[in-house]
Amino acid sequence: MLHIEFLTDLGAKVTVDVEHENQLLDVQRHYGRLGWTSGAVPTGGYQFPLDNEPDFDWSLIGARKWTSPDGEELVIHKGHAYRRRELEAVDSRKMKLPAAVKFSRGAKSTDPEHLREKADGEFEYVTLAIFRGGKRQERYAVPGGARPAAQSARPAPARAQAAARPAPVAVVDEETPF
Amino acid sequence: MLHIEFLTDLGAKVTVDVEHENQLLDVQRHYGRLGWTSGAVPTGGYQFPLDNEPDFDWSLIGARKWTSPDGEELVIHKGHAYRRRELEAVDSRKMKLPAAVKFSRGAKSTDPEHLREKADGEFEYVTLAIFRGGKRQERYAVPGGARPAAQSARPAPARAQAAARPAPVAVVDEETPF
Amino acid sequence: MLHIEFLTDLGAKVTVDVEHENQLLDVQRHYGRLGWTSGAVPTGGYQFPLDNEPDFDWSLIGARKWTSPDGEELVIHKGHAYRRRELEAVDSRKMKLPAAVKFSRGAKSTDPEHLREKADGEFEYVTLAIFRGGKRQERYAVPGGARPAAQSARPAPARAQAAARPAPVAVVDEETPF
Amino acid sequence: MLHIEFLTDLGAKVTVDVEHENQLLDVQRHYGRLGWTSGAVPTGGYQFPLDNEPDFDWSLIGARKWTSPDGEELVIHKGHAYRRRELEAVDSRKMKLPAAVKFSRGAKSTDPEHLREKADGEFEYVTLAIFRGGKRQERYAVPGGARPAAQSARPAPARAQAAARPAPVAVVDEETPF
Amino acid sequence: MLHIEFLTDLGAKVTVDVEHENQLLDVQRHYGRLGWTSGAVPTGGYQFPLDNEPDFDWSLIGARKWTSPDGEELVIHKGHAYRRRELEAVDSRKMKLPAAVKFSRGAKSTDPEHLREKADGEFEYVTLAIFRGGKRQERYAVPGGARPAAQSARPAPARAQAAARPAPVAVVDEETPF
Repeated sequence: MLHIEFLTDLGAKVTVDVEHENQLLDVQRHYGRLGWTSGAVPTGGYQFPLDNEPDFDWSLIGARKWTSPDGEELVIHKGHAYRRRELEAVDSRKMKLPAAVKFSRGAKSTDPEHLREKADGEFEYVTLAIFRGGKRQERYAVPGGARPAAQSARPAPARAQAAARPAPVAVVDEETPF
Repeated sequence: MLHIEFLTDLGAKVTVDVEHENQLLDVQRHYGRLGWTSGAVPTGGYQFPLDNEPDFDWSLIGARKWTSPDGEELVIHKGHAYRRRELEAVDSRKMKLPAAVKFSRGAKSTDPEHLREKADGEFEYVTLAIFRGGKRQERYAVPGGARPAAQSARPAPARAQAAARPAPVAVVDEETPF
Repeated sequence: MLHIEFLTDLGAKVTVDVEHENQLLDVQRHYGRLGWTSGAVPTGGYQFPLDNEPDFDWSLIGARKWTSPDGEELVIHKGHAYRRRELEAVDSRKMKLPAAVKFSRGAKSTDPEHLREKADGEFEYVTLAIFRGGKRQERYAVPGGARPAAQSARPAPARAQAAARPAPVAVVDEETPF
Repeated sequence: MLHIEFLTDLGAKVTVDVEHENQLLDVQRHYGRLGWTSGAVPTGGYQFPLDNEPDFDWSLIGARKWTSPDGEELVIHKGHAYRRRELEAVDSRKMKLPAAVKFSRGAKSTDPEHLREKADGEFEYVTLAIFRGGKRQERYAVPGGARPAAQSARPAPARAQAAARPAPVAVVDEETPF
Repeated sequence: MLHIEFLTDLGAKVTVDVEHENQLLDVQRHYGRLGWTSGAVPTGGYQFPLDNEPDFDWSLIGARKWTSPDGEELVIHKGHAYRRRELEAVDSRKMKLPAAVKFSRGAKSTDPEHLREKADGEFEYVTLAIFRGGKRQERYAVPGGARPAAQSARPAPARAQAAARPAPVAVVDEETPF
């Protein structure tokens, strides 16, 4: 048996038992849709292969896509809104980096020091995830190639609760586009 | 099975087993009425939809309403008293924020740095919760539309203990109203 | 079932299963008598009602009374000795505080910053507990109105071990009386 | 029964039950191959006997060998690439140190202070592991004297998942060779 | 049932179930012999009665005695070597301290600030344990009055593993004697 530790949408520390190892990602998807997260965002953000970006299942990390009133596609994670930004490949003498897609937001005064990354000038930002290089992992994709309602290993009441999930409370700050 | 980790009113670290996912909020209400909390207050405070403010169930986060001898309605959380404060909507060129209700208190010298927020001048404060935007969540409301004595998933001894709950030990400091 | 996490007298992290919620305080008393503690001392010390001070059961927080060779009644907690000090009520225009009893010690160079409180001059101290205001809680009292040998929910071997409990290793530093 | 706590390749906190003490290293190998780690890298890096270096089983600490496009053998751990470096024995009047093999990388701005070690000039680096002195431990070696596909105490689905393990997402920065 | 949390010799976080309270110290001895530790060394070091020093069972805290090539008796804990040092009693007007035996080492640049203690001049050191005052506790002694091979509550395979325990990888730095 496995046990996965979450921080719920209410900030509570809750551990969930998982019968079999191969149910783990489904359990993460299930609770991730409720906004529950497990572990902290790694410094510099989660790293995924670039080919996983188009249909990445954001519920795996407790995040979700959200279209702002202005029609912009954002990713909401723990009440913060992250913008999508494409990074071109770098091929200089000092550094060789393939193209990437990054989801980031402007840093807030309450963000801890180790999450803030310097940009040009005084500007600081926080990265949720970066998709770069690597080889596509099917298990990171939205199951069924779309955003299905089913696919959860959980019983009906849970899904009902998922349906009742709050609309974004988070007010999307007008951030400097970066 | 799920397991929720609390800090009790005596500061002990106690984990409680929860049979079914749909009992989780009831367990949080039950122990929250004893002043037990799970997880830390998020930086900047808990975020809830504005429409949940009038009948928000404070036991969900281990807090409760308390009327001071002066007749002021306060929220008590972990021995601290928080005042209610209405924030008007902001609609400037730089920022767009809907109206909100905030529960906050003046910062104390022993509060950790990341919880202190700057106000005008030298004044610093700590936010417990902010109600802003979003869509009302029924599950955050006091069950039954009022503050009922029952509704707990727990047996009688527990309720008895809840009844024996201490009157506020906390002495409400005379804080600058903010 | 509940599970309570302790730091033993040897500094080990040990979790104890508790069958029923109403056995929790007895389990805390039992292991507290061995010097085990659960959770950290809150910043500013534990807060209890003033009326609980005369017969407070210090085993609830892993502490105990100890009479020094000079006949002074001290409270020993995690190898530190705390002195009892009565605080008079404050009733000024700026602050209104009822009378209190405080157990505190002089700060040591190895105490973490957030536990040190400033006194007059350069002197710093650390508070274990403050008894002030509130309404007496029977459950915080020594069971039976005295310091009984029995009353534990545990079997005999455990009591034997409790009996073998070390005399205070802690050397009571000559502290500035405060 | 034992329980081992991991941080998964997705950064989730997952505990795995282990029936018998003698299965623990196999479980660490199994999940280590998926990039899961348990505990933090000790300050100054893991310490192993020098004679374990040639066939050390990197899966024990959630790492693995990887040959870069340039043909260099690196060790990948949590998305970072570490270079192998041989240290000669030191035998001066001030210090006596046997020969060693060290796996280290240049420090990044987001590395926490306590992991950064000073080298010549302004250069800082982070050590994953150091092999020095001691007596070879068979239990640290790749089982079977090679890098076998089987040897796991786990059922087939798990191995299948291991096979699907991502190619290194990590882009190997052009680091100063040290 | 109890559960004790260890950091293994490989740095992994492993919890071990303990059937009965009176088996706890045996379990600590058993895993301590493998170099596993539970909890952190307290600030200022573990405190034990002076009369426990001659036959103290160092496996209780995951340490062990080791005779250096120079014939010096050291205590090895988590790869660090600690020297034995006798402290005379202090009986001045400002301080009254009975005689003690201390196990300490010079501080290293990677030691966290709160563990470093100031000595004369610029010299800093770290204390593992101090034996002073108090009353001898039989349960802290090596079982059988000597350093027995058996005495473990564990089955044979575990003992075999203990036998295979690594010789000290740690290179004993030439420290300033203090």
